[in-house]
Amino acid sequence: MKMGAKRFLIFLCFTILTKAFTQKKLSDHPLPNAAQLSWQKAELGAVFHYDLHVFDKKKYLQTGISGNRINPIPDYQIFNPEQLDTDQWIKSIKKAGFKFAIITATHETGFALYPSNVNPYNVKALKWKDGKGDIVGDFINSCRKYGILPGIYVGIRWNSFFGVHDFKVNGTGEFQKKRQLYYNQMVEGMVKELCTQYGPLFEIWFDGGASHPDLGAPDVLPIVKKYQPDCLFYHNNQLAEARWGGSESGTVPYPCWSTFPTPYSHTGDTTTDHINLLKHGDPEGKYWMPAMSDAPLRGYNGRHEWFWEPGDEEHIFPLEELMHMYYNSVGHNSTLIMGLTPDPRGLLPEADVKRLEQWGEAIEKTFSKPIATTAVKGKELALALNGSKIIQNIVIQEDISQGQRIRKYNIHGFTNGRWRVIAEGQSVGHKRIHRLEPIAVEQLRLEIQESTLPPIVSFFGVY
Amino acid sequence: MKMGAKRFLIFLCFTILTKAFTQKKLSDHPLPNAAQLSWQKAELGAVFHYDLHVFDKKKYLQTGISGNRINPIPDYQIFNPEQLDTDQWIKSIKKAGFKFAIITATHETGFALYPSNVNPYNVKALKWKDGKGDIVGDFINSCRKYGILPGIYVGIRWNSFFGVHDFKVNGTGEFQKKRQLYYNQMVEGMVKELCTQYGPLFEIWFDGGASHPDLGAPDVLPIVKKYQPDCLFYHNNQLAEARWGGSESGTVPYPCWSTFPTPYSHTGDTTTDHINLLKHGDPEGKYWMPAMSDAPLRGYNGRHEWFWEPGDEEHIFPLEELMHMYYNSVGHNSTLIMGLTPDPRGLLPEADVKRLEQWGEAIEKTFSKPIATTAVKGKELALALNGSKIIQNIVIQEDISQGQRIRKYNIHGFTNGRWRVIAEGQSVGHKRIHRLEPIAVEQLRLEIQESTLPPIVSFFGVY
Repeated sequence: MKMGAKRFLIFLCFTILTKAFTQKKLSDHPLPNAAQLSWQKAELGAVFHYDLHVFDKKKYLQTGISGNRINPIPDYQIFNPEQLDTDQWIKSIKKAGFKFAIITATHETGFALYPSNVNPYNVKALKWKDGKGDIVGDFINSCRKYGILPGIYVGIRWNSFFGVHDFKVNGTGEFQKKRQLYYNQMVEGMVKELCTQYGPLFEIWFDGGASHPDLGAPDVLPIVKKYQPDCLFYHNNQLAEARWGGSESGTVPYPCWSTFPTPYSHTGDTTTDHINLLKHGDPEGKYWMPAMSDAPLRGYNGRHEWFWEPGDEEHIFPLEELMHMYYNSVGHNSTLIMGLTPDPRGLLPEADVKRLEQWGEAIEKTFSKPIATTAVKGKELALALNGSKIIQNIVIQEDISQGQRIRKYNIHGFTNGRWRVIAEGQSVGHKRIHRLEPIAVEQLRLEIQESTLPPIVSFFGVY
Repeated sequence: MKMGAKRFLIFLCFTILTKAFTQKKLSDHPLPNAAQLSWQKAELGAVFHYDLHVFDKKKYLQTGISGNRINPIPDYQIFNPEQLDTDQWIKSIKKAGFKFAIITATHETGFALYPSNVNPYNVKALKWKDGKGDIVGDFINSCRKYGILPGIYVGIRWNSFFGVHDFKVNGTGEFQKKRQLYYNQMVEGMVKELCTQYGPLFEIWFDGGASHPDLGAPDVLPIVKKYQPDCLFYHNNQLAEARWGGSESGTVPYPCWSTFPTPYSHTGDTTTDHINLLKHGDPEGKYWMPAMSDAPLRGYNGRHEWFWEPGDEEHIFPLEELMHMYYNSVGHNSTLIMGLTPDPRGLLPEADVKRLEQWGEAIEKTFSKPIATTAVKGKELALALNGSKIIQNIVIQEDISQGQRIRKYNIHGFTNGRWRVIAEGQSVGHKRIHRLEPIAVEQLRLEIQESTLPPIVSFFGVY
């Protein structure tokens, strides 16, 4: 297709105005590995939380002395999901457009949802299914069946059954030392089991990080790297292939860079400065480390619950809140992972399923039919809309396989006979969505004002 | 049968010489309950020790920081008794004349040999038999098959897996308190399981006692009394229906009384005085509490091993040592419990089986064919031997269902034309064996010199 005369003129005009970009050597430029690239492209995932206390009919307490972190569940035989159907879980998120799903193989109780041979506190101990259940296995089979990428979450920081508090086996003297060694070996054994028995994993998520072997914690990184070289490692004090985005709000602020100054994301630093670094990243950072946004679906109106509890349906986020999250996570170059939690039947509750479906439909409706798109190498991209159109969203994507290069850009819209800036920003990365007040425009122009290397915009679309 | 004239004369003669006994009221007189009576009559039992470390190919260390009490077994999957045959265990002791057998349902590692639903660290966690093994169940079935009375040993004082040291969950603060409550509940749950799932038990043995609920230990006594009212309870700081005989030598010193001054046998008192009280009992004691002698079969020549270890055959007690034990336990009014330990195949080793067989034969040979016996109420019992006979053993038994009444006695032998004292003693109880240098006698006379109530000698025999 030939470029129209008018468009060509605009193109020329703004070429002249383009600022020089700070040129970097390519070798200084952090790039994602294959796992990170897939993880960012996936955009939306779910983390399914399921543990013994889902069955205790009580409110889950995340903190305090009566919390599950220090108070073993009195009777683990309460775990009895009689209608367990992991297909139902996975179909629900598939329909909502999620691309990957993670399951809590263990959480803070220490109970393993799969038949471990190194941690006896697991499904084999149950009367349920005569000890023959394997929720991790079922889950991963369902993922593969429905084309969802499977991941595993491992909680090793807390274990109220074995007596582990913030990675440390509670106790004193030689007694404590011996049990710490044993616990570390148990954890390493579990990580090996999880990394070898269920095929390729998309992500492994260590709850709260996995600390550092030099601090006395289990040495999990070499195990993951040996048995799951293509799996995203999230994370310990040695390495974070993604970083927590600094809140559990399901959002990151803007700008949000995919790079970070250290190969690990945090080592116990809880200062505001560090939290801000987690939220924003560092455009000068030498390590590729995209941000995760996470939130539990049941986090609305005074609750923040990763685990199913009776009567919490009213705390399921309304659709508009979820859309807000989407714009402020995926739309900010961050992968969004939503916390879902099946109920004691073993099913994702109908209300949650319905909300996910509505959300998926809303995203689909908004973004499935662009008014116009383009992808041209260079510092300017122009889009003619074939007449005046009401637009509400602009999406920009970089080809992040070549790094995050754009540092500053703006978008002009041609409307009512003149050009004006309708959006501007710094970070693009995998995806930047500008949500606009509805506005009628005839043409759009993306101008990359600053970049570290020649920018590669892989997508520029308007909705 | 009419009493011969000569015998009658002797009888009369010694009636005159009989000293008065201190008469007590019958109500002051402690009596055994049915469980204690059966336990004393059984005389010989076995306690089978089996635990994870039988499979570790290492020497078992009962103490020290590297011991199994504080050092969890690194890999519990080593437990793999491929040729397990509890029939073979029980046939071995049946042949040796043992009347009851006890199995360590749990020992110091905390690992349960049966499929518990309250303690996940159990056979269900094993690859062995695909988690479907039940050694306690097999054991008890074998006992019933061969007419051996089954008992269960529960180790709750130590648990290196869960982190329990001398009943206390190791740890600090609220964390420790919560896990202590959980542990106590776990133990109580296990005791209930063991008391309800395997039919009537002959004895329940709490390793090192079960402490006292007031000291923060599990409250096990009401559970045993509720579900196994006819089972011998051994023991906690509230009640001991038998007492430890003060050593693990398989012997008690003489005299050994079946009565004790308190309803419990020890509450942590390790003074020499208390150990002596355990060994001897107290003839004035108001509580019936017969003494147990115990020793591991592999306790000879510098070893004392309750658990199988490679290359320990030379430490199996020689026959003469075992006979010494028999005389100094059963022959001293104490029930003897021998520690046996199957090997990693799941079989009692051939050398142990052979020694048991020899032992059983030796006891049988010595005691199965008395030269003469009698049982007459009264203070004197006479035995004519139908001519001069070489004797080596004299056995006296009281009808202990009526209490332990005899306080002093002697035995005269008529030899070479005159009577002389050939044995004397204080305690008789269920059984007193006098092992003599071979001596030729024509007649014997047992004279009860002192007793609290009229003595009831149920057996007087010579071998």
